[in-house]
Amino acid sequence: MTAQLWCFGESGNAAKVAQMLTLTGTAWQPVFVNFFAGEARSPAFRAINPMGEVPVLRLDGRTLTQSAVMLRHLARKTGQFGWASEEEEDEILRWLFWDNHKFSAQIGTTRFLMNFLPPEKRPEQAIAFQQGRLKAAYAVLEDHLASRDWVANGRPSIADLSLASYLYYPEPFGFVRADWPRIDAWMSRLSALPGWKHPYDLMPRAFPPATA
Amino acid sequence: MTAQLWCFGESGNAAKVAQMLTLTGTAWQPVFVNFFAGEARSPAFRAINPMGEVPVLRLDGRTLTQSAVMLRHLARKTGQFGWASEEEEDEILRWLFWDNHKFSAQIGTTRFLMNFLPPEKRPEQAIAFQQGRLKAAYAVLEDHLASRDWVANGRPSIADLSLASYLYYPEPFGFVRADWPRIDAWMSRLSALPGWKHPYDLMPRAFPPATA
Repeated sequence: MTAQLWCFGESGNAAKVAQMLTLTGTAWQPVFVNFFAGEARSPAFRAINPMGEVPVLRLDGRTLTQSAVMLRHLARKTGQFGWASEEEEDEILRWLFWDNHKFSAQIGTTRFLMNFLPPEKRPEQAIAFQQGRLKAAYAVLEDHLASRDWVANGRPSIADLSLASYLYYPEPFGFVRADWPRIDAWMSRLSALPGWKHPYDLMPRAFPPATA
Repeated sequence: MTAQLWCFGESGNAAKVAQMLTLTGTAWQPVFVNFFAGEARSPAFRAINPMGEVPVLRLDGRTLTQSAVMLRHLARKTGQFGWASEEEEDEILRWLFWDNHKFSAQIGTTRFLMNFLPPEKRPEQAIAFQQGRLKAAYAVLEDHLASRDWVANGRPSIADLSLASYLYYPEPFGFVRADWPRIDAWMSRLSALPGWKHPYDLMPRAFPPATA
């Protein structure tokens, strides 16, 4: 049974799951959500996910919301990018929660405000505030990667897929790879995994590619 | 062995764990962190938690960070406020992730900016932005509670403890219980659980109680 992922190319949270589905060789198809036209807040979409959020994953007769819950489900199901003990599971979860609280959550908001709002509607003070918080978060990850190749348990896991997802997008949000050499090297290791694809090659996009 | 919780009274994230320890009858003692003096960013504290965040929990020979990981550990250990199947576990996790992404995370920041910064340093635009996002989040929770007494699986769980924690604080951050009658009723059910305590009665405070 082919899995269905409600998604759009610009969503780093959807890209986490699309990447996991692809890397694990799970059959799936995208269901495009026109997020920027407000579709995620529509009654029809809220009937699928009352939280009004993308992504949503349907597989194995279940409808899952929250990207981290989907990543865990796929890790259990495929035996890939997961954990081998309760301690390993907790270590992965610790980073998934940090990602959802301090990292991807803030990146997603900042990138949205800087790139997907009309210039006259951009709340510059809120953007500056978010960028300040994010600098502290990049430093935490940079330090963590000083002594390890992967975020948790010495091998690639759903924690890496979750944390790295937004960082590959080209739109500016205040993160420059060259400023964070350990994050940069880790991103290169991750994108070298067999089958890895750029988020914009994984899912249908709302906006056409920028032209130079 | 008595558990140790690095905490301070003003931290809603620490209160989640302090409440769980108390409700489950787990022996514990607080270790006060002088957060507002920058202690969480000090080298000594970062040696305990490189993420530079409160709370930290030491028990059973382990040092845990991220409140949701601690709540899960305590649910497994005590058999209380947890899950009875993989589906139930996923349902609780879904709300824990939503809480860390969209709810407590944004409330904590907003409350900090509005109450624990000198008035001249308050970023009013960032506060207004956060309050707008939070209104949408309160509505999601209010709707969810229209047809149920507890957030997940028909009984009190760590999902309730996590989501409700910040809502009991008296400092203003834009949430008024009377505006959200189902959240209000749910908070009353939760605080009626035997042994429940207000966050300021669970942990040592950084600031003295406000006087009228």
